[in-house]
Amino acid sequence: MEILKDVQAKGIQNIYRRNVERVLAALKVTTDFWKIVDYSDLPVPYASAIINSLLEKGLVRIENDEILLTEKGWQVCEEYQIGSYKDFSCEACQGRGVPFFKNTEFYRTFVGIAKDRPEPVQQFDQGAVTPETTVSRVLHMDMRGDIEGKEIIVMGAEDDLTGLAIALYGGYKRLLIIDIDERLIEFDNKLIKELGLKNVEAKVHDLRNPYSEEFLGKFDVFVTDPPETFAAFKAFIARGIATIKDQGGAGYFGLTLRDSSIFRWQKFQKELLRIGAVITDIIQDFNNYMNWGYHEETKAAKVAPVKKAPRDIWYRSAWYRIELLPGFERTNEPISDEVFYLDEEGSTT
Amino acid sequence: MEILKDVQAKGIQNIYRRNVERVLAALKVTTDFWKIVDYSDLPVPYASAIINSLLEKGLVRIENDEILLTEKGWQVCEEYQIGSYKDFSCEACQGRGVPFFKNTEFYRTFVGIAKDRPEPVQQFDQGAVTPETTVSRVLHMDMRGDIEGKEIIVMGAEDDLTGLAIALYGGYKRLLIIDIDERLIEFDNKLIKELGLKNVEAKVHDLRNPYSEEFLGKFDVFVTDPPETFAAFKAFIARGIATIKDQGGAGYFGLTLRDSSIFRWQKFQKELLRIGAVITDIIQDFNNYMNWGYHEETKAAKVAPVKKAPRDIWYRSAWYRIELLPGFERTNEPISDEVFYLDEEGSTT
Repeated sequence: MEILKDVQAKGIQNIYRRNVERVLAALKVTTDFWKIVDYSDLPVPYASAIINSLLEKGLVRIENDEILLTEKGWQVCEEYQIGSYKDFSCEACQGRGVPFFKNTEFYRTFVGIAKDRPEPVQQFDQGAVTPETTVSRVLHMDMRGDIEGKEIIVMGAEDDLTGLAIALYGGYKRLLIIDIDERLIEFDNKLIKELGLKNVEAKVHDLRNPYSEEFLGKFDVFVTDPPETFAAFKAFIARGIATIKDQGGAGYFGLTLRDSSIFRWQKFQKELLRIGAVITDIIQDFNNYMNWGYHEETKAAKVAPVKKAPRDIWYRSAWYRIELLPGFERTNEPISDEVFYLDEEGSTT
Repeated sequence: MEILKDVQAKGIQNIYRRNVERVLAALKVTTDFWKIVDYSDLPVPYASAIINSLLEKGLVRIENDEILLTEKGWQVCEEYQIGSYKDFSCEACQGRGVPFFKNTEFYRTFVGIAKDRPEPVQQFDQGAVTPETTVSRVLHMDMRGDIEGKEIIVMGAEDDLTGLAIALYGGYKRLLIIDIDERLIEFDNKLIKELGLKNVEAKVHDLRNPYSEEFLGKFDVFVTDPPETFAAFKAFIARGIATIKDQGGAGYFGLTLRDSSIFRWQKFQKELLRIGAVITDIIQDFNNYMNWGYHEETKAAKVAPVKKAPRDIWYRSAWYRIELLPGFERTNEPISDEVFYLDEEGSTT
């Protein structure tokens, strides 16, 4: 369609016809920009560019910050047989396949503790997932045999309290939680002490610095949640893999389509395979992020075609699990902080 | 552990410590060989080799076709902190994330029709998935925007009646079902006629033969279920991708760890990326296969350390979804039938 050409003419190349169709499919069921981003699985700047192009062509109009299909818009949907966006995901497990309530005692304990967590800050690209997400991550890991008797490192993902949740869950041989944010590490350490949790340590570490010997090749499992620039992804994942002691080790991380396109996902996947990993799970929309206090300050808010802030959960990411095969590559270079958080696809930091 | 070295000494290279651990984890909760294969996510010959090695080392014993950990076996589990196998998958959606009962009318209709389906035959490596699996596949496709208004081809997977299920579901622009098995195509055509289904065609085609122009580059979505030798996988997927008309087209297929190792999965994934695909979903244990009448005749039955046939569902596969990115490769070579169904990892055909 010409919408596609129009958006490409504005310099956005990582996009194809399906993306325009998915925006239209979303517009058939919602007028909220953030839900459109969510339903169409697009980076915010790309969804925004498509909406702007639809506006120019008269297929949508904006009224009180709501985006509505015009009569012409509905006609185009009919002409191209664009179906409505549909959500058939499971209400019990919220589409994850692993319901948080499989262990209600653990869930209750975690929720009780997480309510006092430090607020997310923009400086570190933070944005916490729901407690249901964190709890499901832990259950998913345990189901895959990646907790009991294992040495686990949780790297720079403590805004989600994933490390603390594993600490509460127990069963591991050893757990190390590292994060750049002192507030989170203090929060963890306070609880570790109060609850008398064993074989777990939380310490401040800036992932841009290379690992010392105490990290390298010492763990069975790593967990992280990288920013979605290619450089940052590569760095976080390389750091994770460098901690793994042996083939058969596993890694877990989130990857979103809200801050990176499916085109970039292909680059990520090629890199994973090149390093010697195999992907065992990609569970879409596993991670649901609560809205963060600093939304107004983000590029996402600025490029959005409407001023209305998100009210509901709209930012989701897929949960990846990988295993490392024989000959996997351990690297430990320092990481430049230049390219970390923003590029043409990212916008929420 | 020495078990690992022992199995490797018997010529099985695509295996690592984790695999032995998972067999032990399974043995802590079951004595049934087929459940051990299921829980440990291993090819049957590999699970069998591990069990035989455990037998030789006195970690398990066999009694009335049940495999039991010995006292020494339990000690080893404790020493290496091997946890029990756990299943936290959702009871509502059976771990798929998409419950079959999201559309009960469709489910009922499909079940009513599927009960008269032709029996699976060994000649074509057939083994049908449960009706819940087939129905969930269709709902998953529709949720991803791959049915409404789309041109869809279902290739050589009609033992699962996936094509017929899409036909019943409706909403597509055009549907073509091809399979080598005349009985299935006749079954489909009879129903298509009886129910007056539109824009759908079912015809006999041997996927080893190259496609004619009527197939090449004509579809938006393909669905298939390849055998797990590398040659067969490559051939089925290449055939599928050759039918796709444009970037953004999607493909769906099952891949199991019961007939191929995680090592081979990496080769599959590299091939997918090389051809120009990106993987958007890997949902483990999405496809549940009913037991097939010809089990006694399979290599699986022969290499199993016990004579007892499977009673429950034990054969599962992951459900993959891919999208094709710009520059994806369409090939259309004839396929040799030599390497199709059996190799050192496959055993159920």
